[in-house]
Order: sequence, then structure tokens, then C-alpha cells
Amino acid sequence: MAGNRCLVYLAPNRVELQDWDYPKLETPAGRRLDHGAILKVLASGICGGDLNLVRGRKRPALPAPYRLGHEVTGEVLEVGRDVEVIKAGDIVSVPFVIACGRCNKCKEGYTHHCELLGPGHAAPDYGYSVLGGQAEYIAVPYADFNLLRYPHRDEALERLLDFALLADLFPTGYHGAMSAGVVTGSRALVVGAGPVGLACATACYLLGAAVVFVADFNRARLEQAASFGCVPIDLGASRDIRSAVHATTRTTSDVDAAIDCVGFAASGHGSPEDVDAGDSLINTLIEVVRPAGRLALLGEYVTEDLGAPTAPARRGRLPVDVGLSWTRSHVVVTGRCPVMRYNGRLMRLLQHERVPFARRVNATAIPLEEGPSAYRQMEAGAAVKFVLDPHGVIARGSRATGAVEAGAARS
Amino acid sequence: MAGNRCLVYLAPNRVELQDWDYPKLETPAGRRLDHGAILKVLASGICGGDLNLVRGRKRPALPAPYRLGHEVTGEVLEVGRDVEVIKAGDIVSVPFVIACGRCNKCKEGYTHHCELLGPGHAAPDYGYSVLGGQAEYIAVPYADFNLLRYPHRDEALERLLDFALLADLFPTGYHGAMSAGVVTGSRALVVGAGPVGLACATACYLLGAAVVFVADFNRARLEQAASFGCVPIDLGASRDIRSAVHATTRTTSDVDAAIDCVGFAASGHGSPEDVDAGDSLINTLIEVVRPAGRLALLGEYVTEDLGAPTAPARRGRLPVDVGLSWTRSHVVVTGRCPVMRYNGRLMRLLQHERVPFARRVNATAIPLEEGPSAYRQMEAGAAVKFVLDPHGVIARGSRATGAVEAGAARS
Amino acid sequence: MAGNRCLVYLAPNRVELQDWDYPKLETPAGRRLDHGAILKVLASGICGGDLNLVRGRKRPALPAPYRLGHEVTGEVLEVGRDVEVIKAGDIVSVPFVIACGRCNKCKEGYTHHCELLGPGHAAPDYGYSVLGGQAEYIAVPYADFNLLRYPHRDEALERLLDFALLADLFPTGYHGAMSAGVVTGSRALVVGAGPVGLACATACYLLGAAVVFVADFNRARLEQAASFGCVPIDLGASRDIRSAVHATTRTTSDVDAAIDCVGFAASGHGSPEDVDAGDSLINTLIEVVRPAGRLALLGEYVTEDLGAPTAPARRGRLPVDVGLSWTRSHVVVTGRCPVMRYNGRLMRLLQHERVPFARRVNATAIPLEEGPSAYRQMEAGAAVKFVLDPHGVIARGSRATGAVEAGAARS
Amino acid sequence: MAGNRCLVYLAPNRVELQDWDYPKLETPAGRRLDHGAILKVLASGICGGDLNLVRGRKRPALPAPYRLGHEVTGEVLEVGRDVEVIKAGDIVSVPFVIACGRCNKCKEGYTHHCELLGPGHAAPDYGYSVLGGQAEYIAVPYADFNLLRYPHRDEALERLLDFALLADLFPTGYHGAMSAGVVTGSRALVVGAGPVGLACATACYLLGAAVVFVADFNRARLEQAASFGCVPIDLGASRDIRSAVHATTRTTSDVDAAIDCVGFAASGHGSPEDVDAGDSLINTLIEVVRPAGRLALLGEYVTEDLGAPTAPARRGRLPVDVGLSWTRSHVVVTGRCPVMRYNGRLMRLLQHERVPFARRVNATAIPLEEGPSAYRQMEAGAAVKFVLDPHGVIARGSRATGAVEAGAARS
Repeated sequence: MAGNRCLVYLAPNRVELQDWDYPKLETPAGRRLDHGAILKVLASGICGGDLNLVRGRKRPALPAPYRLGHEVTGEVLEVGRDVEVIKAGDIVSVPFVIACGRCNKCKEGYTHHCELLGPGHAAPDYGYSVLGGQAEYIAVPYADFNLLRYPHRDEALERLLDFALLADLFPTGYHGAMSAGVVTGSRALVVGAGPVGLACATACYLLGAAVVFVADFNRARLEQAASFGCVPIDLGASRDIRSAVHATTRTTSDVDAAIDCVGFAASGHGSPEDVDAGDSLINTLIEVVRPAGRLALLGEYVTEDLGAPTAPARRGRLPVDVGLSWTRSHVVVTGRCPVMRYNGRLMRLLQHERVPFARRVNATAIPLEEGPSAYRQMEAGAAVKFVLDPHGVIARGSRATGAVEAGAARS
Repeated sequence: MAGNRCLVYLAPNRVELQDWDYPKLETPAGRRLDHGAILKVLASGICGGDLNLVRGRKRPALPAPYRLGHEVTGEVLEVGRDVEVIKAGDIVSVPFVIACGRCNKCKEGYTHHCELLGPGHAAPDYGYSVLGGQAEYIAVPYADFNLLRYPHRDEALERLLDFALLADLFPTGYHGAMSAGVVTGSRALVVGAGPVGLACATACYLLGAAVVFVADFNRARLEQAASFGCVPIDLGASRDIRSAVHATTRTTSDVDAAIDCVGFAASGHGSPEDVDAGDSLINTLIEVVRPAGRLALLGEYVTEDLGAPTAPARRGRLPVDVGLSWTRSHVVVTGRCPVMRYNGRLMRLLQHERVPFARRVNATAIPLEEGPSAYRQMEAGAAVKFVLDPHGVIARGSRATGAVEAGAARS
Repeated sequence: MAGNRCLVYLAPNRVELQDWDYPKLETPAGRRLDHGAILKVLASGICGGDLNLVRGRKRPALPAPYRLGHEVTGEVLEVGRDVEVIKAGDIVSVPFVIACGRCNKCKEGYTHHCELLGPGHAAPDYGYSVLGGQAEYIAVPYADFNLLRYPHRDEALERLLDFALLADLFPTGYHGAMSAGVVTGSRALVVGAGPVGLACATACYLLGAAVVFVADFNRARLEQAASFGCVPIDLGASRDIRSAVHATTRTTSDVDAAIDCVGFAASGHGSPEDVDAGDSLINTLIEVVRPAGRLALLGEYVTEDLGAPTAPARRGRLPVDVGLSWTRSHVVVTGRCPVMRYNGRLMRLLQHERVPFARRVNATAIPLEEGPSAYRQMEAGAAVKFVLDPHGVIARGSRATGAVEAGAARS
Repeated sequence: MAGNRCLVYLAPNRVELQDWDYPKLETPAGRRLDHGAILKVLASGICGGDLNLVRGRKRPALPAPYRLGHEVTGEVLEVGRDVEVIKAGDIVSVPFVIACGRCNKCKEGYTHHCELLGPGHAAPDYGYSVLGGQAEYIAVPYADFNLLRYPHRDEALERLLDFALLADLFPTGYHGAMSAGVVTGSRALVVGAGPVGLACATACYLLGAAVVFVADFNRARLEQAASFGCVPIDLGASRDIRSAVHATTRTTSDVDAAIDCVGFAASGHGSPEDVDAGDSLINTLIEVVRPAGRLALLGEYVTEDLGAPTAPARRGRLPVDVGLSWTRSHVVVTGRCPVMRYNGRLMRLLQHERVPFARRVNATAIPLEEGPSAYRQMEAGAAVKFVLDPHGVIARGSRATGAVEAGAARS
């Protein structure tokens, strides 16, 4: 039992690869994790949320050193005494929102508000329940409840780069589309063409959208969106989303659904200084959504934001066009994704190769060593979804669905 | 064909009874209303929305003279050539949101966003589609689509004071409860114990709420709420709604659902000067609703509010705790009630005498002459729902369900 | 640790009280039930389903001796090593459909189709997952997932007779009403006025029904239904349910929703020989439900019925008016109740004393010794819901909500 | 105004082209259709339902001569005095279920159970509300309510062959998929690979199905299904649908959803003698749908079927495995499609070219003269959806979406 190489946050914008101990079936407090499992991490995405942590803008401040990573796909190496369903050898996806399956919230389907995995566990201060997933190994609690097992091991390994995206990214995008009420024939607007925005746009089409507009400042990301049929709106050219929508539909109709995939720290092009974009973004959505339409605030909003320009905004209080929204009878849905509600459905799409998840977001597998560099590239607005490949399993042969296109998997 | 006595707005806080012309089956523009009907008004509620108009705080300003009233129940006297279903003699309820039944919005069930009855028709500037309902007679367009016919005429006349409340009040209250997701076992909070709040609290119980908290400053109204099992929260004693909730449930659980029945011009006790209450009210709801719970903004919010304290608030832009709401995964539902979605269901409850609508809100029938005085009493916070009885039909013998209690019907 | 007195099935229509061993935290196969709990049974209902078992009409035949009872409410005496949430001393309700909380079906909310608690466990052949609940003590698996804890112990003990009805009866009735789509204003028909029918009628009103018709042959049970506002239809006087409905509503409208609370062995009056009633019952519902209305088959239908009159019926194949149902666009919902979907909501109603559950079904507490007699009284059509009180806790002072009425609790 | 060439039923299996009068804005009873419109028929599908009529198996018997056709797309030539929204020149789709928009059923969204367009109107005996649509011209009542206007005239004409399929076929298929609860990740089974089955399979994928199995005896139709990713199940090779499903998924899981697109007169290959297929089909679905799954009976079932083998079946009473279905907690949804619920959404997909409707069902435009021959080809099981092109507009240049493939539009 050697060590465990992990990506670790040390200080704002400083991420390093370090050697830590191999995980045990134990809670941070030292109690046995009889319901847990130890995984060999086969794939681990880097999330925009990680970037938010690393920038150090949100509060409370991260304790350093802090092991990063919450998007884990792995092979089960060992299970606790009380695990019945999951077995060693299973290839599993870990919902980034882990939960106990025993509290009232979990039983009602609100795993993102689990009453047990709160303060004291797994970095709850930052709201990411999986801790230290950008590593070679990890321990996960409540394995039977949390882990999504791919039914056929060989197929799972073949499709690992796609499967890796079901731990957070595509369920999150799908949650946005569902929250915004996208159904057959909807005209949807996605703001933000980073990985979450692209996943959300994919989900909009999956739910039957007639047309999906994707707005961003980043041209490379907009091109990625256009590659699968989205209508790009270049905010660098004009911020008038509404006119762009009307021009495409040749009507004066506003969109049925809009999803904010950016959140409190709007930064489509790597600039964290665009301080009030979060605010104006909500009001832009209110302006462009039709009467009786829906808005989803999928990108994270926070209660402590050091980077905000005003005192109220620093504690998450933003000026919102309530009057206009009310006259339009809007529904606004907020919050994080309850991953378990969706990941099984999405896995079935992968089993039947219905959606080329990895290709949609330009997923790229990289070794653990390249993690720090990937963080910097993300900060610079790279139109790529980085997936760490700690054991080289993806590199050695996993095939992403539709990987015939260049760039879908890094050799 | 004599005239038509109407309550008319002349200037802020000036309402008079005037004689106008008997209505014709004609649009304001002079086109024949072949699809319309002329009603003898048997009951006509005075709404908090009327009070908002009369106060003159909202903008654009009312054109004066302006005939008030949008909560109409009546007897059909005459129908246009193209009316097929509705017949003279029918006793009908007019949804205060009238609609065409032909546009896309109507076909999708969004009658509150009808595409035909827009600017140029029926006072759309103020969003009330029925115009001049506090009168002896009124013409209503699209009679077949809009009018809700009570199946048995005699029974309708007997239950007129209850039936009168289905034109706006109880459908609106019900919409709030539905929007807030109230279901069996919910713990709900209603803010505002005026008629809309009481109707909403009634609807919460009707939808199966385990407990309904009602908060207001007005003690008489709180007593009315308590009379049918609500838990009153006296904001005059303490504004800490959350503690009051926890004390009652003997838990630290927040409510599942909260409905703001006040809106932009919070005034639970007759004081229109409590200028930022609307703002703080939304944030209070955010604080007291549990994770994954829902908020309904049922009380009106507007885009031009002369009385607001800041420039952004004057155009309907309010500071909202987006960060906190997001961390709780709230759903927020706004807007006016699509009456036709609910009024038929509620009428069936009346047919089988399941809910004593009039008694719940202390409905009181008054002659048209007492209208101006009723406006003043409402301004002063009377714990009464005034229903005009232009032809004395209610006074002469209509029986409100459960009218055995004092005060349910005025003799 | 002494023994454990249990009601035991020995042969068709032979039930006895026997002494068995005190339960252990062990599966039938001898594996430790680390996730289980041992309960002192404080209340245990006798269900119509038990009666079906005891009659011996269904197949496969019960293995004798067979410990009866699946409606358990109890006090937790001991929990397994892996139980985290439930504690000794908790007063809990056991969903009669126990489930693992770990399989895909459970995660999707279909606890009534749990993939682990299948053949080999807990009498799955008969579809009742809790085994041996009519006893002094019982072991229950997956305690954290299954058990519904009443938040306040003292209150739970005070309301024990009501709380006892949430293990099966009221969730089941509620499931029927939900499945039939009952909403505000619905006109509903419940066939069968036994405890399930009465619970279902209660649930219909709870969901907002305008009127609930209850049909049966048993007059005492019909009186019980009428006692809380249902419209009784005496099938002994006339089987023409449709005319009875029309007479009450003074229309020709059919009902919106109908729930069959009888099932395969229709026997409203104690006669198990009414062999084809199950069949004709479905077709009666089809005839009386309006276009676009819904039917729920809540009473059990089986795949092996020794008592059926034809070979197809003996394996559960019944003649159904598919043509007529299709022309009416009916929706038909079948199957057992996923108790955990509803029991928490209903418990909240009890906490706030919204529904006098025990009184609605004339619940009567009896000592374990009177169990065999109670089975015989049920066979004879007693208008009572029997609840065993193995330790005399109910008798010694638990108060049913609304127990002021005679008969609600046995002294 | 000359005449109006129409396809007319004369006797079982005898269809002719005849000259009738140009339509008037008049009801059959001679009352003015002020709310109606006269259309130039630009496209008119031949439906399996027409074939059922022409075969003469259903009862009551068709009155002869009877003008066929209910799938109409046209250009508005003239509107009645009371039509406000629809204008001459509009290109519109007529929902085959026409409705008044004024009765309670219509207001609740149940246009397929409209209370006005009943007996005495428009061939209600056969349940098709549009009468005589396989013609050059047609009058349609309640034009504003019924007609779906394509927003851009030129685009409508270009996409006419696709647009033609929104009058009945694709809304009907979509209704089946919705009724069966198909969502993201569903495994669905469609029985019947005729045009309705293919439309339904398309809809299943549109709703996010992971895999759609399509079963039929007709190999050409199965090839059509396979052409867009369905898994064909050749019933001629084996009737064991369940094994075929398990082999594809490499599991023992049954399907989540199944849609019967055949109905009472199962005949995948032109043989009306397969008399009890309707029966066995329902039971086959029951066998192959997983616990808590859903079945939709989309194909028509009738109350008078001359061709049925038993007396009960002749009046629509079929033997159904109620016991098995109950143990699986199935939901069964029956009935005709309320077209207006879906056609607008599907039109938006066409506007944005998301789904090549015509290509999916191999739609082929033919002149009116070829109608009688088309009926015979359909009887023989042709894998084609015939669309009459009475004025040659499609032939002269309309482009079906994706018409690059051979056969999508007839030149």
C-alpha cells in the first residue's frame, strides 16, 4: 500500500501535486466507514467550482493544504463490512453530492441537502461533498447508496471518458435544463459556454428543445456550442441577447427557458474582475424570458463573495428586477444538482450510445501531473473539459463515444 | 334601459358613485362584441388591487374618471350573436383575468397572458382585464370562453356571497398555495392576513397543509385567520417569523412553503409608508423556507412604484438574497393568477358545500352606495372582505354557506 | 429475554396465539442484521390482506405455521451496529413494504419493488414484506431507511392508535386517491367501505375532493363512511352506482376518479363466494368514470386465485371492457402502496391533529389474545379496524385524536 | 367556384374519387359557420384509422357514400365573420380532433372529449371529428381555436410534407410516448411499425429514450424503424419480445414503457384475420413492462367489432392479465390523442428543422387520383405514409426536411 498522489490547494491560485496517505475506511473523525468503499480513481474532472475555490474569492477561506476534486469515477478496490450491493471490481460513478440515504431529505430525493453529511464532513463549507477526488485513490461513504455502477465492466472501461462526465457535469447541465422547464419544442437560452453551459445545452436538446441559444464572450467555446447545433450569441460583439434571439426566430417571441450557467462570478473569458456580471445576468434573463417562462440559476451563487463590488453583494444580496419578473409570471429555480436524480438515466443513454458526452464538451484526458497546468488553462478560458487520468487507463485505450473526432481523447 | 351606476376613481383616494350609460355589446373601439354578453352584476368584490389603484402609488397613472372593479358575478341578460354555450338567465362568475381563448397563450392555459386582450382593451395598463365591474351592469367579451356558469340557478342565488369570491379572491389564494407547492403535510407560511392571505391560507389547508402560519401586523385579521385553525404570528409583537415557526413545531425545521400575499406595497395595517417592506419581505421568506422549499410571490410587484424609497426600487428592482436562496435550492414562483385554471374546481367545492368561502374571509355584502366608504375602511385595515350587492339580491336572501355565524352576510 | 407471543396461521381460517422465540438481529438465513432493529410492538393492525391469507384462497399456499402481521408500530429496543439515525427509545412506524434503500428501485422511489427483499426474504410470495408483526416483538431490517420516527416521544405515545394506522392503512388509502388523480374539486367514487375504503375516502377529502361516494353492501360500514361526509351507495339496495351518482350531483356527469378498494375477492359483506365481483367491479368503474378520468385498482389482484370461477380468472386473467375504457381515454393505475412516499406527510397531519385517523375507520385496540376472535369478526364484516395492543400501552392511556367519540379507543 | 373532388367510401373496401360541392361555411344542419374557415387542402394524409373504416369491421356501419379523410393541412381561403386570429392566406394544420374551445372539456385541455362536437356533428360515430379531408377543399369549424398557423408562409410551403404530418400522425405518436411515461434514459417498446408506430418511436427518442424496440411482422416497416436507430423485433421470426429485449440490453430488465400502436385489429401485415392479436397484445405488453412501468394503448380499441372471435370481444371486452399487471404496479393509459396539446410544440421542431418527420415515416406525396390505389397498398402493408397532394403543391416543389434521401417526396 503505497501513497496517494493528490492535487492540493495551497494558496489562492496555487495548486500542487503532493503525496498523501492511501485512504482508509475511516471518517475524518476516525470512526470506521463500514458503509464506505475505497476506489481507484480512473477519471476525475476538474470543475469550474474547483476554479472558484482556487481563486480564493469565495468565503470562508479554504483551509490549506486542501485536497481538490469532486468529480470521481473509479474502480472499487475494497468495501466496508456493511456494503451489500457494491462489489470490488465494479466501475462506478460517484455523485459529487454524496449523501447518506437515511435522513429525511435523502428519502425525499433531496440528496443535495442531506442532513448527515453536513458541517464536520467532507468540506461542507464549500458545499462539495466529495473531498480529494483529484487523486489516485479515494474513500467514499455510504457506498451502496451513492455509487452508480455501470452494468458491464468492459463497456465501462471503453467509455470511461464519457462516463467520467456523469459524476457532476452532465447531471448538473441536465438539472439546469429540467429546472428551466425545457420540453419538446422549447426555445432555450444558455448563458455561459464553459463545460457546464455546453452540458446544459446538450441536455436542452436531449429534452426536446427546438433551438438552444448559447451566449458567451469566449469564441472558442461558442464554436464548440455551434458544433452540435446551438445558435451562438457572441456577447463580445453585442450584449443584446434579446435581439439576437428575435433575429433567429424571425419573431418577437422571447425564450421559454433560460439557464444561467455562470453564477456569482461571471467570467466567460478568464477575467474575474467582471464583478457585477452576476447581477446583470439575472436581470438579462428576466428580460429575455417570455411570460410564464422559467429561469434556472444553475451557476453557483454564494453568501460570502470577497470579490463583489458592494457590501450587500458581498453577502450575496443582489439587485433583481422583481417587478418585471412578476409581471411576466416567471418561475425561478435555484441551486445545486441532486445528482442521483439523473445520473442513472444519463448512464443509460451512454449504454446505448445516444449522446457523445465527451465530444460535446471537448473532454480531454490528462495525467495527474498536468493538473496544475490545467487549472491555469481553465483560468485562461480554454474551451476544454479536463479530465484527470491518474492511472493512465483512459490514455491506454478507453474510447470516448464518437472519439473519431480529433481532440476527444488525448493520446 | 336606464343608466348604470358605477364606482369611479376621480383622483388619488377619491372614489365616487356616478351614473354612466348602460353597457352595449361593443368594444371600446366601437366594434360589435358578437362574442360578448351583458350581465346584471349580482355581486362585485372590492379587491386590494383596487385599493392599490386608488392610492395612486403605481404608475402609469390611472386615467380619470376610471370605472373600478374586476370581481364580477352576475346574471346573463343578453348574449351576442356568436355565443353558443352561455344563455340569458345563467348565473356566472367572470374570471377577473379575461381572455380570448384563441391565442397561443390562452390555448396553453396562460390566460393571464392573453395575446389579444392587451393594450387598447380593458385597462391593460393596470393588468386588470375586467373594467368597471363595481356597477349595476357590465359587458364581458368572449362570453363562452370566459364565463363560469353555476350549474343550478337557484343554488347559485342561494350561495351568491360565496360564489362571488370565485371571480378573483379564492382562485388567487389557491394559485399562491399551488405555486408554493403546498401538498399533504406541508408546513406553510402566509404573509398578509387580508382577504388574499386568508383565501390563500384556506387554500393551503384545502391542499392538505399540516399547519398554516399567518403573519401580519393587524390583530383583527390575525384573529380571523386563527378562527379556522391558522397559527397567527403577530408581526407587531415580533418580526422574527422563524422563531415563531420553530416554537410551534417544537423543531428547528423551516417551512416548506411560503406565500407573500402582500407585494410591492406591504401594508398590513393601513400604512402605505412602510416603503421597503416589500423588499424585506422577500428576504424574510428566503430566510424561513427550508432547503428545496418554494416561495410564491402572489401579491403584486410592479415596474413603476412612485412610493419606493430608492431609484432602483421605483422601477421594481429590489435587493434580493440570491446567495442564500441559491444555497437552499429555492424555487420562486411569481405572478398573477390564471383564474380559469382553478375556478371550476373551487365551484364544485361550493356545490358540495365543502368550504365556507365567505365565512373564511368575513365577506360582507354592502349596497353600491357604501362603496366609497368601504374603500376607506379597507385603507384603515378592516378585517372584512367587502362585496358590493348592486341590486340587493344578496341582502334579500342569499345565504352564504355557513352563514349561521354572525357577520357572514349583512342583513 | 423471555419469549414472544405471536398470532400464527395454522390452516385456512385457523389462527392461534403461540409462544415463539424473542427475535434476534439476524436474517432468516442466519446472517447478522447489522442494519436492523428490534422493536417492542406497541400497536399492530389486522389488515384485510391478512384475512385474504388466512382464508387460503390465494396461492401459493401459506406455509404453516406462519406468523401473521405487517402493520407495526413500536418502540425501538435495540439497533444493529450500522444503524446511525434511529436510536433505542424512538417510537417508530414500520412501512409494511420494507425495502433496502440501496437498490435501483428503492433509489427511484419504488420501495414496493425493492430488488433485495425479494424471494427468500420475509414472505415475499405473498408480497408482504414485514413478517410476524402481530406479536410482542419483531426485528426489522434496514432500520435507518425504513423506520419513520415520530419526532416527539410523548406525543407519539399519546396518539398511538392514530399513529398505528400509518404503517399501512392510511398510506394505502392515500395511494389510491393519488393514483386516481383526486384533486381539489374532484368527484370521487370509492368501492368498498372496509378500513381501506374508509382510509381512501378520507384521503380523497384530504386531497380536496368535492364529494366522495362510497359503495358497499355492508350498511354499518356505509354508516361509518357517512359519518364524515361521504355519500353512501348501498349496493344491497341497487347495484346502479351511476344513477346514484347522477342523483346526488343533479347532473349526468360521471365521476372524475374511482378507486377499487376491494380487489380480486370482492366481499363487502363477509361472503367469499361472490366470485366474479372482482371482474364486474373493474367494468363497473369503467362505466362510471368520465372521459379522461382515472381508475385506481388499489385492492389486491393476484395471479393465482383458487376461488375464481374460470380457468383464466384462476390465474388472474379477467374480462375487461377495454373498448369502452379506450373510448373514454381512461388512465388505470394498479398495485400496492409505496408507503414511504406518503407516511411522513401523513404523520405531519397527525402532529398537527388535522385528521382523526383512528376515528375515521373506527379503530379499536384489543389485546393480543383477542386476535383470533378479531379475524372472525372481520370475516363477518365488522365495521371496525382492529389494532392489536400487545403490551397494553394503548389501553393504559393512549389517546386517539378525537377519542371523545365512543369506540375510538377501547378502555 | 367549381366543385370539390373527394375520396369517398362506398362499401367495404371500395373507395372512389367523386365530385362533390364546394364547401360552404355552414353546419350539416344548415346553420352558418361564422366561426369557421374554408381551406384549400394542400396535404391530406391517409391514416390507418381510415383503413379501419374502409374495411367495414367496426360498427356502427359507415353511411355510404362517406367522404374520407381527417388529416388536413391547408391554405385558408375564407374565414367566417367571427374569426379574428386566422386570416386568408395562412397555412394551417387542422388537428384531426376538432373541438369547440368553449365547453368545459376543451377548457380543461380534453379537446378529444369536446362536449359540443358530439353526435350530429362530423362523423362522431367513428370518433374522427374532421370529415371529408381527402378532398380539394374543406370547411372547418371554430377556426381560431382549432387551426395551428405556421408562422412563416414561405417556410410552411417549403416544408409541407413534414407539416402535413402534424395534423394527426406525429401528435398521436407523441401522445403514445408521453402516455407511456417515456423520459430521458427510458427503454421503450413500440408494437406496430406502421406510420403511427414509427411516429411513436420517433417521439420516444425525442423524449430522450435510451433505446426503442419496435416489433412487427412486416420486414419493410422494421427496416424503416431501424433506419433511425430503433432495434427491430421481427415477430415473424419469434413472438418472444421479452427475450429480444433482454438480449439487446444484456440484462434481465424489462422495458420501462410500452406503446401498443396497433389496437383492436392487430394487423401488421395486412391480414385482418389475426383476430385475437389485440387481446394477446395487451397481455404481451403486461409481460414485458417492468414493475412500476407504464403501458399506453394508443391504437384504437372499440366497443363494436364485427371481426372479433367471441361475443364479449365483439363488444370490446377482452381478457386481460389484471393479476400480473397489478403485481407489477402498472399504469395503463388509453385513448385518442388530444392533438392541440402537442402540435404547436412539434411545429417548433419543424421550424428549427430538428426532426425529419416525413423521412421518419417514409412519407410520399401522391395526387388525389391515386388515393384508391393507396388504400389498397396500405392494406397490403406498404411501408409508406401516403399524403394526398390535391393541388400538386407538394409535387411542384415543397421540400421535405431531409428530402435528400430518395423517396421522401415523390416528384
